[in-house]
Amino acid sequence: MKPYASLTKDEQRAELKALQEKYAEIKAKGLSLNMARGKPSSEQLDIVSDMLTVLSKADDCYDGKLDVRNYGELLGIPSARALFADILDTVPEKVIVGGSASLQLMFDLISKAYTHGLLHSPAPWAKLDKVKFLCPVPGYDRHFTVSASFGMELIPVPMTEFGPDMDFVENAVKDPDVKGIWCVPKYSNPDGIIYSAETIDRFIHLKPAAPDFAVMWDNAYCIHEVIGDYVPFPDILSLAAAAGTEDMFYEFASTSKVTFPGAGISCMASSVANIEHVKKILNAQIISFDKVNQLRHVKFLKNKENTLALMKKHASVLGPKFTAVLDALDKEIAPLDIATWRRPKGGYFVSFYAMPGTARRVFTLAKEAGLVMTNVGATYPYGKDPDDSNLRIAPSYPPLDDLKKAMEIFCVCVKIAALEKLLG
Amino acid sequence: MKPYASLTKDEQRAELKALQEKYAEIKAKGLSLNMARGKPSSEQLDIVSDMLTVLSKADDCYDGKLDVRNYGELLGIPSARALFADILDTVPEKVIVGGSASLQLMFDLISKAYTHGLLHSPAPWAKLDKVKFLCPVPGYDRHFTVSASFGMELIPVPMTEFGPDMDFVENAVKDPDVKGIWCVPKYSNPDGIIYSAETIDRFIHLKPAAPDFAVMWDNAYCIHEVIGDYVPFPDILSLAAAAGTEDMFYEFASTSKVTFPGAGISCMASSVANIEHVKKILNAQIISFDKVNQLRHVKFLKNKENTLALMKKHASVLGPKFTAVLDALDKEIAPLDIATWRRPKGGYFVSFYAMPGTARRVFTLAKEAGLVMTNVGATYPYGKDPDDSNLRIAPSYPPLDDLKKAMEIFCVCVKIAALEKLLG
Repeated sequence: MKPYASLTKDEQRAELKALQEKYAEIKAKGLSLNMARGKPSSEQLDIVSDMLTVLSKADDCYDGKLDVRNYGELLGIPSARALFADILDTVPEKVIVGGSASLQLMFDLISKAYTHGLLHSPAPWAKLDKVKFLCPVPGYDRHFTVSASFGMELIPVPMTEFGPDMDFVENAVKDPDVKGIWCVPKYSNPDGIIYSAETIDRFIHLKPAAPDFAVMWDNAYCIHEVIGDYVPFPDILSLAAAAGTEDMFYEFASTSKVTFPGAGISCMASSVANIEHVKKILNAQIISFDKVNQLRHVKFLKNKENTLALMKKHASVLGPKFTAVLDALDKEIAPLDIATWRRPKGGYFVSFYAMPGTARRVFTLAKEAGLVMTNVGATYPYGKDPDDSNLRIAPSYPPLDDLKKAMEIFCVCVKIAALEKLLG
Repeated sequence: MKPYASLTKDEQRAELKALQEKYAEIKAKGLSLNMARGKPSSEQLDIVSDMLTVLSKADDCYDGKLDVRNYGELLGIPSARALFADILDTVPEKVIVGGSASLQLMFDLISKAYTHGLLHSPAPWAKLDKVKFLCPVPGYDRHFTVSASFGMELIPVPMTEFGPDMDFVENAVKDPDVKGIWCVPKYSNPDGIIYSAETIDRFIHLKPAAPDFAVMWDNAYCIHEVIGDYVPFPDILSLAAAAGTEDMFYEFASTSKVTFPGAGISCMASSVANIEHVKKILNAQIISFDKVNQLRHVKFLKNKENTLALMKKHASVLGPKFTAVLDALDKEIAPLDIATWRRPKGGYFVSFYAMPGTARRVFTLAKEAGLVMTNVGATYPYGKDPDDSNLRIAPSYPPLDDLKKAMEIFCVCVKIAALEKLLG
């Protein structure tokens, strides 16, 4: 195999013809495969299903003297706040433990900013003519959907291998309409990038024009190593506190990919002043989140150390899948010099950059051959990838054999689309 | 015992002196009793604690073919939507099953009205200069707190024994700034009134000036009989549909006082058009609510019939407590002609009307004698009862013996406050 660009047109045409025949064969099989969603597999769910029985009788339902079956404890039970504090390397007073979804906590914080204002807001955002939000790209589609849902103007920020382009960010925050930024600081979605120490240092020293600028620090993959050992990551809150900017940071995490997706527990961690501010509004919203499930998680996960051991079990299922994806790309695509991709050590995705202008074509070819991928452009604000290049591969859900078949189809589609492009 | 007003001043003074001595004796005991909160008792929680084990292994976690441990089903699992539809006498398509708190669903609907607008909103409410909301009084403090939190103007609506004063309501909704009303249609909080057929008929034929007028139909006590058999109550959605006003109604219910308070499941039921509208916004907010807990409830509660049987067990604990409260009032207060109270057959409260101008005094006296009551005024917007009369008695949480002691203190305080008032 040689780089496609180095082939003669005739060679390219011959290669395309061979691939089209192979594609037709695959299509004829009528497969139904899915690499679209960052969903844990059934095998992973089975690993954690003992959680169902950790609370099995009334006497189990006490967190100290607190009966978790009854009302109360707006900010979460003490032991659950302590568990997340342990995992995030912060303190319980800075942690609110919520319901089953950190996405809901994020949406609700933005919603509160619109209806009530954040701690330092001169006015609720709903009263403003314009709200702009920074969106590192490629990024997490659901972050962008939250912002879009509220009618914000989404500003794409280029990602570098060290995190968001901080020159760009530092300049953008001079605009007082720019009210915040979405971040996945460890194993960014989809690139799997870990923000560097310098990036973090520049974050905590940001001087935004908006006094209520909000860094949405979605630490979704804080303990989600897939290949290799746990990588420690700094506690943003203590660093920011030292820099005098702690009120700017809202950190989120959940157990969605630790225990049960959508039936886990979530948290928001922030300065004590922010927690107090949010608590006041939360007091009108809810009496308490599901404390039985909080205690169930505390008894099952115990502490950070034990949780990291559990994550090793998840990695034993996920690791081979990531390796299968990377192996296929290394073997089938690398020699052709038509695409690039990241090699993440954690998170849930492999971010793939097809030849510019071909991602949509790859998606369509794959779909017609029975392979569903994440929508092209989903990783960009408004669903528009200006380069039509990025494809998010989600290896977690399909069984390993299906995943290998899926990657075979994917590679054929990537090649066909590239050759079509080269042949014009 | 004779009516206090019929006593001579000297007789009143002698009675007051005797009561003050009794009060001093009680105070000396240093009691700590609480009739403030509509919390189920530990005994009730124990009745439902078998729910902890209905899902105990991976194979239990399927709703048909759906693995509830994983992501998906934004509007709730089919069987949970069907369960609430059964309980509320509506259809699953009109039901969204949420997380552990119906209060959160209510807050969020109001929040969405502010940020996105309801289905028929000309503009999000945050864009309006003024939003007014009707608050039947006495009513549920947390409803009023939601409205107040968003800066609405709260308009008290007198309650009658048939529900809100509909003459008042029909007139008030002519104001286009009036955007909705809070209702607890069955066993209203705190009065325990069941809205009459005529009241409901006038509700479904309301013609508000605001096209997005929202009736917040909080059916919190839909199956919560305390004394006597289940009282059927009409399905507001089908009645409203027949009247062409279904989009005006948002019905809420939860299992907070069926299974575990704060760890149950909740629902919002409304027209299919409203559900579709809310679903679009919800899609940005959450991937799915806790479906494991939804399935746990379905397996434990099964259907309406079985749930009603469970409610009988709750009533076997609650009934004697309500009876103890009413017996004490009948014996100690009724002959004195200084107060009135409701005799609810369901719900969680006994609504007590002390001699006007004495409720605060009763509260303070009780507090100083070691008995915590719901804050005076809590049942009115902004916490202000213009008559300083209503006190909400919550008999559910204390054990029966404590409750009897609490009522003894309460009656002494009511008498003292009345005599003080009469003596000027």
